[in-house]
Amino acid sequence: MAREKVKPCGVLASGDVGRWDSESDVVIVGLGGAGACAAIAAAESGAETLVLERASAGGGTTEVSDGMMYIGGGTSLQQACGFEDSPEEMFKFLMASVGPEPDEERIRAFCEGGPAHYDWLVAQGVPFEAEFYAGRMLSPEQQGLTYSGNELVHPFPDLAVPAPRAHMAACTGPTGAFLMQKLLERALALGVRIQPDTRAETLVCAPDGRVVGVYARQTGRDQYLRARRGVVLCAGGFINNQEMVCQFAPSLMKAQYHAATDGDDGRGIRMGMGAGGAAVRMHTGQITLPFYPPKGLMRGVFVNAQAQRFIAEDAYQGTMGEVCLLEQHGRVWLILDDEIFERRAYAEPEIAGVGESIEELEAEVGFPEGALQFTIEAYNRDARRGEDRLFHKGAEYLKPLETPPFAAFDMSWDKIPYAVFTLGGLRTNARAEVLSVDGIRIPGLYAAGRTAASISSPGYASGTSVGEATFFGRVAGFSAAGGGA
Amino acid sequence: MAREKVKPCGVLASGDVGRWDSESDVVIVGLGGAGACAAIAAAESGAETLVLERASAGGGTTEVSDGMMYIGGGTSLQQACGFEDSPEEMFKFLMASVGPEPDEERIRAFCEGGPAHYDWLVAQGVPFEAEFYAGRMLSPEQQGLTYSGNELVHPFPDLAVPAPRAHMAACTGPTGAFLMQKLLERALALGVRIQPDTRAETLVCAPDGRVVGVYARQTGRDQYLRARRGVVLCAGGFINNQEMVCQFAPSLMKAQYHAATDGDDGRGIRMGMGAGGAAVRMHTGQITLPFYPPKGLMRGVFVNAQAQRFIAEDAYQGTMGEVCLLEQHGRVWLILDDEIFERRAYAEPEIAGVGESIEELEAEVGFPEGALQFTIEAYNRDARRGEDRLFHKGAEYLKPLETPPFAAFDMSWDKIPYAVFTLGGLRTNARAEVLSVDGIRIPGLYAAGRTAASISSPGYASGTSVGEATFFGRVAGFSAAGGGA
Repeated sequence: MAREKVKPCGVLASGDVGRWDSESDVVIVGLGGAGACAAIAAAESGAETLVLERASAGGGTTEVSDGMMYIGGGTSLQQACGFEDSPEEMFKFLMASVGPEPDEERIRAFCEGGPAHYDWLVAQGVPFEAEFYAGRMLSPEQQGLTYSGNELVHPFPDLAVPAPRAHMAACTGPTGAFLMQKLLERALALGVRIQPDTRAETLVCAPDGRVVGVYARQTGRDQYLRARRGVVLCAGGFINNQEMVCQFAPSLMKAQYHAATDGDDGRGIRMGMGAGGAAVRMHTGQITLPFYPPKGLMRGVFVNAQAQRFIAEDAYQGTMGEVCLLEQHGRVWLILDDEIFERRAYAEPEIAGVGESIEELEAEVGFPEGALQFTIEAYNRDARRGEDRLFHKGAEYLKPLETPPFAAFDMSWDKIPYAVFTLGGLRTNARAEVLSVDGIRIPGLYAAGRTAASISSPGYASGTSVGEATFFGRVAGFSAAGGGA
Repeated sequence: MAREKVKPCGVLASGDVGRWDSESDVVIVGLGGAGACAAIAAAESGAETLVLERASAGGGTTEVSDGMMYIGGGTSLQQACGFEDSPEEMFKFLMASVGPEPDEERIRAFCEGGPAHYDWLVAQGVPFEAEFYAGRMLSPEQQGLTYSGNELVHPFPDLAVPAPRAHMAACTGPTGAFLMQKLLERALALGVRIQPDTRAETLVCAPDGRVVGVYARQTGRDQYLRARRGVVLCAGGFINNQEMVCQFAPSLMKAQYHAATDGDDGRGIRMGMGAGGAAVRMHTGQITLPFYPPKGLMRGVFVNAQAQRFIAEDAYQGTMGEVCLLEQHGRVWLILDDEIFERRAYAEPEIAGVGESIEELEAEVGFPEGALQFTIEAYNRDARRGEDRLFHKGAEYLKPLETPPFAAFDMSWDKIPYAVFTLGGLRTNARAEVLSVDGIRIPGLYAAGRTAASISSPGYASGTSVGEATFFGRVAGFSAAGGGA
């Protein structure tokens, strides 16, 4: 069997394939949001399309996500909700917020193609309600548009005109599942062939390095699936592959909740690496510290082990997670007074201390003497003036902490499950073509979704992954159907 | 010519090689510290050995380094200087200091093999003077042993018995050049063939994935160099390849001084990736903020843009660079009073402000009102008590800042050249064999020096790179000569 002929690097030579079990124009590995959009786009382009899915049905991580899609640049929905956005302003925001060294080419494509992508989603049967949701983050009901990142947080309003860009499909149940249902219906209607319970193992390459098929296992049986035009890898990220996380993204090991499915074991990335694709920015992840809702908690004060403030507390919870885990080593507390004390909506945090005065609270938590008192005094002074000179927290969340008793939630990494998934992956260009470390195209190979490196690492906004997955999945399906050069 | 047959992933199939220009048992790419030790070890093992060097002579980055080698575990030199060290204590220190997720297998090999490695270096003709240097960091003259990392810095003395581990060869000129001279002399004496002015381009692989040779260019001419037993990649890191830094280690782009040679363009790593080796921890780098000598400056106080302290100022300057650049975003100042004010030995820092009081200095630099006053008051209180409750700075560097005038050096990334080189590279095991992303050996392929991922990223101590280069270079030469499995 050819299984033994898989090379140490993880690829199978076409010469070692005795037979092809099936032939298609395009073979897609993985049927989450990226795979479904790739399949639709390939089929729409006239390509005979086969999708391999390891689970018994499509869905992937998109299905269990909140279904939010970060897209923009002036979509019909943004317009219908009364917001002006443009590719230029979205580009300015992303370039400023996703640093360092953002991928300008793909970000530009993502911004310029946003409006058309929205229309394409609608054409696939995904409905949206033209209503804006002013709340913070959590799935709105029916409303189609909301803010999901740092657009309104200092310094971004000074750098780009803010616009809400999180697009949510209109449905009654979970949005991720609904979105996938619509996309899968459409793929099937277009004649896409879906082969579930099939675990893609490696790519098959011709002697010249071109990717010409996939070697897979279906219920214990070898399968060789030829792809005349191209293979699209849409098999998710790698947060559920502990060895890979350890090798590539050791800092993420501390985040205990994986926002992922079992499928996020890096198989797609590993297959691409076997064929010579470079895996880049593999250390990056989306780290969420879900400290709101309720959003009133943003009126509290985050401090580190020295009782120092270190961030504007109205930051997007992904930014908060990243800064707390990577820069503050996961040792952080949220200080509240009685007026704003509320229980959190998710996991109940541990109360590290309560005091009738800040001094008492300081002693109870064990902060250095005087440190918390100084921090809160300075913060209260600023809050009364309506200006946070340290971190420019929005005025609506500025309130002096002066109503006893005072409390500290322990928000440290081992007390609250920080939620994480990986953002690193295969290097791709704006056509979703996979590139080598030298920037050379691997002919016949495409990638999208979390199998490809994100355009946004760090500096994430909620919905970026499903936004990217659907956008670049669609691009990848279209590129693969075109056959490439 | 076969040049056109290099696959998109960057490897050449042996079937596309028309002729071999030469045959050896072991071919080594790069003649710095790792390559020289690999060559010596291979030749000592009886292998016919060829080294390809792109420059006109050997030396590499080791030659321009300070020549310090971080090795230990109880070497004869440590003993002769009166220090007890053991593989266990060195292992404990490294495991605690190089996190997260240290490479236990290689660290164990490095610690257990330290004493024998020192003896081996001496046997190659590298002399050491059995004298300890108590100063901080900079090249001692003749003295052979010094501290070069965080061994004496909180919390490490509580976790492992400290020992000095930086070994320096005894010579009058630059130590790196002297060390290389001794190693090159020895390699030549053993009959190692050295081919300079030869740029290795790609590896040559047999159909089963085994590495069987190197395709190189020598003054415009193609060369196909067969390796009967193995190829060892010792071609340095990638800090001088801007595109690679941007793709893999974007945070390092801000560090303006590259502690490297032109050869550190990632060629060895890219060749290994082409053959299926995984490049891991590619985001990591050694970032030095050379704020001492003079070591008296460690009595100053580092603050960030909020005038908060964030580190013990007696930290190793590599730790300082990393924390300042990555956690404090490169915006940091060093606060001094008149008693400890000194000019720095290297690049002159910009004086951001001077004041007759801390309040005046605070205003002049533009810190938030009251913030620097609070920080210095708290620090002075601790200094008088001889205990830094915030960061546990060593008592010998604790001194209240109370003698006006006060000054602030601007130590921000755009004011002082932070020195950097890369620590990520090919994944290897304790035999210096290159592994794929799935942990599978690429047969016939070995790597050492900065072409391999460091055992220490982050948590570096000066001399780790030359220590690792010589240690794992020697291991790689020995492994390659053995022919592998």
